[in-house]
Amino acid sequence: MNQVTDSEPRKARRRGDARRAAAAGGAGQAALVQQASGQAKLLFEPVRIVSDDELESLHVASLEVLETIGIDVMLPEARDYFLDAGASIDGERVRVPGDLIMQAISTVPSRFAFHARNPANTLQLGGGWLAFGTVASAPNSSDLERGRRPGNLKDFRNFLKLAQSFNCIDFMSGYPVEPIDVHPSVRHLVALKDMALMTDKPFHAYSLGLERIRDGIEIARIARGVGNQQLETEPSLFTIINTNSPLKMDVPMLQGVIEMARRNQIVCITPFTLSGAMAPVTISGALVQQNAEALAGIALTQLVRPGAPAIYGGFTSNVDMKSGAPAFGTPEYMKAAMVGGQLARRYDIPYRTSNTCAANAIDAQAAYESVFSLWGVTMGGGNLVMHGAGWMEGGLVASFEKFVLDCDLIQMVKSFLQPLDLTREALGLEAMREVGPGGHFFGCAHTMARYESAFYSPLISDWRNFEQWRASGSPQASDKAQAILKQVLGSYEKPATDPAVEEELEAFVAKRTEEGGAPTDF
Amino acid sequence: MNQVTDSEPRKARRRGDARRAAAAGGAGQAALVQQASGQAKLLFEPVRIVSDDELESLHVASLEVLETIGIDVMLPEARDYFLDAGASIDGERVRVPGDLIMQAISTVPSRFAFHARNPANTLQLGGGWLAFGTVASAPNSSDLERGRRPGNLKDFRNFLKLAQSFNCIDFMSGYPVEPIDVHPSVRHLVALKDMALMTDKPFHAYSLGLERIRDGIEIARIARGVGNQQLETEPSLFTIINTNSPLKMDVPMLQGVIEMARRNQIVCITPFTLSGAMAPVTISGALVQQNAEALAGIALTQLVRPGAPAIYGGFTSNVDMKSGAPAFGTPEYMKAAMVGGQLARRYDIPYRTSNTCAANAIDAQAAYESVFSLWGVTMGGGNLVMHGAGWMEGGLVASFEKFVLDCDLIQMVKSFLQPLDLTREALGLEAMREVGPGGHFFGCAHTMARYESAFYSPLISDWRNFEQWRASGSPQASDKAQAILKQVLGSYEKPATDPAVEEELEAFVAKRTEEGGAPTDF
Repeated sequence: MNQVTDSEPRKARRRGDARRAAAAGGAGQAALVQQASGQAKLLFEPVRIVSDDELESLHVASLEVLETIGIDVMLPEARDYFLDAGASIDGERVRVPGDLIMQAISTVPSRFAFHARNPANTLQLGGGWLAFGTVASAPNSSDLERGRRPGNLKDFRNFLKLAQSFNCIDFMSGYPVEPIDVHPSVRHLVALKDMALMTDKPFHAYSLGLERIRDGIEIARIARGVGNQQLETEPSLFTIINTNSPLKMDVPMLQGVIEMARRNQIVCITPFTLSGAMAPVTISGALVQQNAEALAGIALTQLVRPGAPAIYGGFTSNVDMKSGAPAFGTPEYMKAAMVGGQLARRYDIPYRTSNTCAANAIDAQAAYESVFSLWGVTMGGGNLVMHGAGWMEGGLVASFEKFVLDCDLIQMVKSFLQPLDLTREALGLEAMREVGPGGHFFGCAHTMARYESAFYSPLISDWRNFEQWRASGSPQASDKAQAILKQVLGSYEKPATDPAVEEELEAFVAKRTEEGGAPTDF
Repeated sequence: MNQVTDSEPRKARRRGDARRAAAAGGAGQAALVQQASGQAKLLFEPVRIVSDDELESLHVASLEVLETIGIDVMLPEARDYFLDAGASIDGERVRVPGDLIMQAISTVPSRFAFHARNPANTLQLGGGWLAFGTVASAPNSSDLERGRRPGNLKDFRNFLKLAQSFNCIDFMSGYPVEPIDVHPSVRHLVALKDMALMTDKPFHAYSLGLERIRDGIEIARIARGVGNQQLETEPSLFTIINTNSPLKMDVPMLQGVIEMARRNQIVCITPFTLSGAMAPVTISGALVQQNAEALAGIALTQLVRPGAPAIYGGFTSNVDMKSGAPAFGTPEYMKAAMVGGQLARRYDIPYRTSNTCAANAIDAQAAYESVFSLWGVTMGGGNLVMHGAGWMEGGLVASFEKFVLDCDLIQMVKSFLQPLDLTREALGLEAMREVGPGGHFFGCAHTMARYESAFYSPLISDWRNFEQWRASGSPQASDKAQAILKQVLGSYEKPATDPAVEEELEAFVAKRTEEGGAPTDF
């Protein structure tokens, strides 16, 4: 079993880094004191907010959708997979019998490893394990100092520095912000090379046609320093497929699904089913549609290659029916995240969900929408948590300070998930005997032996009393996030890379750039 | 069964009020559009973060504490109850055998009604029901306009207006802020009369000696317009007992326990076990101590009167070991809130917990600490949620805008707890058939029939796009809370009261004031 927990070598290296930075005194900023790396695991049963019978009614309705309404599959090659398996085809519309779907998805592995070039960062997906990723795909970036601007390569790279520096970030969910100052034909080459070299954590490639996804797989292979055969037994790249809800899958995404599955890389099918807009106005209806689309996409991965790693993605939220604006971190979002987990577990497939918010500022709203999201995500049994840090404005902005704030929230969730120490010594009877009625525990032996690591140490929370807090200028949580942001960007260290790997990556990107990159005419 | 759900007459009356206020045009502010009243109920199993065996080890250790270390019981009369039942007494120290404790607490009702003078506001405590109360006992109050100041009667009364106006507030947890401009000898008379007349929701009286608790019971009786006998069959007042942790109970609180239990009113024993300060530095140790103290106090209520309504209170959090400052809404708090619920359910006793935060400002920290608290509280099976709205700075401040923010958070939790509609019509297959692949659901029949009430409508969340939001002055969530605060204070209506009840209350308070109120020399 390839469990990923705190790896001693990695921790030791980081401690060494911190000492070195401190010793350098001014040559660089001190590294942040933060939680050790290592995936969190849910040690209790995820919450079931609908009964087994109710869950079955959602499942059955989804199969009915696929059988009677069907789904538009725009790529002939993809339709052929369904046709060969026994589905009926009418133009682009594919109608799939329920037993075909269930037969196909039965080969999805319930748990698998997602390999990073640094083995200490390889992730377990499924089986109660959680992995938290960065924000992805935002068209804009923002920070408190310089405000909101279109995505660009400099900001993109700074987000990678944060992703690499924060131990709680397990993977790159995609481009944290779109580097729109890089031409679309070669953007994937520049961005993927950066992700592979500036971080040593696992990453994502977009399914925007065949060339880009092939480039992504090749960059992942080179970065890991393995051959094609080893890559096929060790999934090292993932792609998110947001179906064109309702009930449609376009050509570039289908090319991605087929190529990734064929190479045994990870495909996550995530219908973006906004209830009231691209999905029914009822959350149950949106879940039926989400489930139908997810099952169809996952079935395709297995028709291409039985046993290929796939993930069930849920992204059902609602719109504000007064304005049509999308809403996130709502009560509806929480319920959908939890039922999505129940559905994924019904099929025994790892579950992807997200940390969301619709706020425009790093205020109370940003925090409560994010924590409500994390509540739904965590208690609902999420495995791959996309947009874990930095997502704002419903995905229109990647915020630097929100990234820091979210890292604190993720650390808190991971600390919450650490089991209580229930050994006889921890129960503290001797301490209570020593202190006795009416005393206090500040200096007793039990406390002195444990106080340094007894409790979670937050990045942001300001627990000073009001007078001290006011005397220091009444800082808000966002001010503290800003200070930490500068500290982390200032202490970033590029992970070690085999020079041969770096050379091969550079050569590959140079060659593909010279060839003109990928087509941009879709 | 006396279930409390949305009562049609009450909803109709409120809608009428809103129309009247709107028609008056400027004569008063329009009433807030808010969630209908009615208690929330947990429709799924609360989370179990420790196994049954682990829970048993906490239970057994607590009994060992009471048997071998014991608890200091300062009131001779209270010691006599324990002595008569078979405990051993050594000075003030009482050592209680485990089977005595278990025998005594076996008579606590697992669920009971907490009666309000308006029957529509009578609460169910236990059995999966949740009730959310106001902030209580803050020495200071604050609002964004006038800042932080010592508690006073005017602010106290404004908090009562909020408590009465927000449907999501089920009860008064105590004095929202201490009206320190009223002399301590008569403060309870003034404050309890206000709570009884300015609201028609159930309330709390402090156990600060025999006179005050007797006055509280009498005011609750008069407000309900019932005789002593009916009062004894219909609990109409509750008191919180914060044991003097570690392992001590003082004279005034013990007088309160005995008098309240004797009259069949509700006693909630809540050890305030701050891990690392008044309790062991391990959360498991703090829980053992919490459990020992809670069981001792609850046992006393049953030794006084078997079957008296009692509540298991949990308030284990941690301190910042660097500064000694108390911390709330932490991962440790969440775990303690959940295990507290497991313990209370093991004894089949209703469970009290709290919505907490340590923030100094209404910023992201205030929000995330509160939502993390509500996460622990809700998923942990809390029944009576103290400090539901307005608590800041670890209880040192009752904030008006935080009160409004918390009401939005509570409404969201209650909305989350409403079950999904899983009827065939809700599943939306006809809508999907109508819309078809590639369409949208904005105007379809399924949407038009449901859109007005499909989703939770927040008080505070700003879902406008960035440009609209910036054009309106880039408001923060706290600004929106401030605007709602003014609206709600401006539209408060005093609930109807029988003139005879009001007269009797005034007369009682006048008489007791003339007698000098209650002693202040402890």
